[in-house]
Amino acid sequence: MPTDPSLTSFVDVPAGSHFPIQNLPYGVFRPQEGVMPRPGVAIGPEVLDLSALQSRALFDHPQIAERHPFSGPTLNTFMAMGPDVWQHVRERLTELLQEGSDLHEDANLRERAFFNREDVEMLLPAEIGDYTDFYCSEEHATNVGTIFRGPENALNPNWKHLPVGYHGRASSVVPSGTPVRRPCGQTRPDDDEPPVFGPTKLLDFELEMGFFVGPGNRLGENIPIDRAADHIFGMALVNDWSARDIQGWEYVPLGPFLGKSFATTVSPWIVSMAALEPFRQAGPEQDPEPLDYLHTDRDGAYDIHLEASLTPAGGTAKTICTTNFGYLYWTFQQQLAHHTVGGCNVRPGDLMASGTISGPDPGSYGSLLELTWRGENPIPFEAGSERTFLEDGDCLTLTGWAEHDDGYRVGFGECTGEVLPAQGG
Amino acid sequence: MPTDPSLTSFVDVPAGSHFPIQNLPYGVFRPQEGVMPRPGVAIGPEVLDLSALQSRALFDHPQIAERHPFSGPTLNTFMAMGPDVWQHVRERLTELLQEGSDLHEDANLRERAFFNREDVEMLLPAEIGDYTDFYCSEEHATNVGTIFRGPENALNPNWKHLPVGYHGRASSVVPSGTPVRRPCGQTRPDDDEPPVFGPTKLLDFELEMGFFVGPGNRLGENIPIDRAADHIFGMALVNDWSARDIQGWEYVPLGPFLGKSFATTVSPWIVSMAALEPFRQAGPEQDPEPLDYLHTDRDGAYDIHLEASLTPAGGTAKTICTTNFGYLYWTFQQQLAHHTVGGCNVRPGDLMASGTISGPDPGSYGSLLELTWRGENPIPFEAGSERTFLEDGDCLTLTGWAEHDDGYRVGFGECTGEVLPAQGG
Repeated sequence: MPTDPSLTSFVDVPAGSHFPIQNLPYGVFRPQEGVMPRPGVAIGPEVLDLSALQSRALFDHPQIAERHPFSGPTLNTFMAMGPDVWQHVRERLTELLQEGSDLHEDANLRERAFFNREDVEMLLPAEIGDYTDFYCSEEHATNVGTIFRGPENALNPNWKHLPVGYHGRASSVVPSGTPVRRPCGQTRPDDDEPPVFGPTKLLDFELEMGFFVGPGNRLGENIPIDRAADHIFGMALVNDWSARDIQGWEYVPLGPFLGKSFATTVSPWIVSMAALEPFRQAGPEQDPEPLDYLHTDRDGAYDIHLEASLTPAGGTAKTICTTNFGYLYWTFQQQLAHHTVGGCNVRPGDLMASGTISGPDPGSYGSLLELTWRGENPIPFEAGSERTFLEDGDCLTLTGWAEHDDGYRVGFGECTGEVLPAQGG
Repeated sequence: MPTDPSLTSFVDVPAGSHFPIQNLPYGVFRPQEGVMPRPGVAIGPEVLDLSALQSRALFDHPQIAERHPFSGPTLNTFMAMGPDVWQHVRERLTELLQEGSDLHEDANLRERAFFNREDVEMLLPAEIGDYTDFYCSEEHATNVGTIFRGPENALNPNWKHLPVGYHGRASSVVPSGTPVRRPCGQTRPDDDEPPVFGPTKLLDFELEMGFFVGPGNRLGENIPIDRAADHIFGMALVNDWSARDIQGWEYVPLGPFLGKSFATTVSPWIVSMAALEPFRQAGPEQDPEPLDYLHTDRDGAYDIHLEASLTPAGGTAKTICTTNFGYLYWTFQQQLAHHTVGGCNVRPGDLMASGTISGPDPGSYGSLLELTWRGENPIPFEAGSERTFLEDGDCLTLTGWAEHDDGYRVGFGECTGEVLPAQGG
């Protein structure tokens, strides 16, 4: 279904809102304390309760009548249902949110089904079975490689042949707004001395985007790249908080572990691939040509403007990074095809993130490690203060949106978290 | 509760059985097709249905009456309840399985509650939220390091300071007996040529043991080492199937990914730490002294005999490895204390595995990579055949038991899987 840029809703959507009728992102919210969470859709300043629409039988797809995807406290069932059902629901919501619809004309239902977004608690949109983090920005991999190994060995030999990734920790994925405690851990600041234990001194963020898996695959069977898009439910912002000193000491030879697993924050609204379709474009040229199982003629990049801002305790927000999802070398489709090519099974609700998204110029780097070049170039803040890495009380916020030529934005809202002092600190 | 070595059950337990009354391991079984799975306990050749005992109110602990831990298709609720409840259930089962007990004297209940182990289907014992794999055998890490980097750089600098580990893939953990499809993937057999795609040529097993987490911890709070034992529900055998050529090409810098995530097999019976208590002993000396958060005076090793055998298609089984859990350098308590020290939360049912368990002599190496020294020393099989790595149709079986001086065995049963040809192959 092409999204009509001129459509409007009976819900008043302010100019520049992330959530016009062309977006309709899915999330899970709790209307008030003590009440069961349920799926909803963001529209302007409101949330529309999907369980209320379902209980009034406003979706007439037989699978929805049978499986009640909006009854539970997660979107996993809906994610599992696949593109036909997703399209049906999107079309129906587009109708229902216009003037004169069944919903618009039913004051009683409107009263029950709409909530002010500021009054509700947003939860994780899915039960995340497994979380995978990739490393798909050439600029980020080159920057990190240069910082740690020098420019001549910056990119590892495998990097341009496959989307490098690793398994992350699913239990510590938290919704936006959850405070993040500074982790303690083992580090070795001086190679000639034994390692030491204490709070990380190099706490960082990573600006990423992730996708939630729709229908999964059976163990032992792959998802071919030309069918990968049908298995991608939608996208969100991801902050892969990182403790660089813990990571640096632990990660050889099995990869990042406790330096990353203390928290990963996701934005609460999942933007569907249908809403992002007008912003799909060609990505960077891939040279060498990927192997067949990673090759597709379908463009897989998206023009999504991304920002990170840092707000010191009691201070004002400063934008420290401006970048774009379109810089990514490997696409989400390639990530999913690669992940499953050996028969690894994915399940509805699994989260896969892009890795830090950095662009070509220094203001577009998606981590403090790169922005300050391992602390060599501090970022100035008000009143003469500066930052190399995150301090207690800092609040780090990601945001992003795609902007249509006709003026509307398909936005992702915010992905934010405040740094708490270390345990016992 | 000390386990009395002289106790016997009214169930006839053959000499040498893995499952005498001193063991009582927990698992989840399906009595027959189409019937709901439920928790059970192995006793000799039988399974005792815990849901049947629960529905007759034979456990009088108030938490069991309230939370019904044996009603669902997993052990997660029971795992979450902690050592007091575990001890109550173990004591009660020990009573009920003796002559003259309420169970023994109730022919009708016995008829409903006992099943022949050979007639039931064993499933995963828990819903595994996250799966972590450690690398805790010094001999294994040294062997692998020597094979890939030479003897002078065999152990990485961090190895003796912390239990190195990585996040594994939870979705592809399967119960014993599940066939394992040979994975396809990207490899680079010749460094001067581009990488190629195809079925792995270096399919391997890894002999490991794992533990299931009991009560979890909150995000941001750690489990101190002296309380770690209370968070460990029990142990099982684990085969961390590995594709060495895929792993070798992909793993720098983020660690193992598709070379491991196509399948991990666990044995179905979880042996409680109470049953293993008579076999607890001191482990290898740890030098240098671990940092405080990893230090404990409580012995954390266990004397558990372990074996791996390989059965070629149509052939007979040959034991290819004989080793012992007691060789491990880092204990499960240290693994759990380390995993959570930065505030990473673990949840009931999480699986943590030891990494390959190798001993000092070549017959005790826990993988084909080490046993054949990367294929240099093939293992002879009948009729002149030999093995360097696994072939299609091979069946790999792990087994293990602790043997008491008084003659009984606390065993783990088997962890087995047959290699299927690659997809499309």
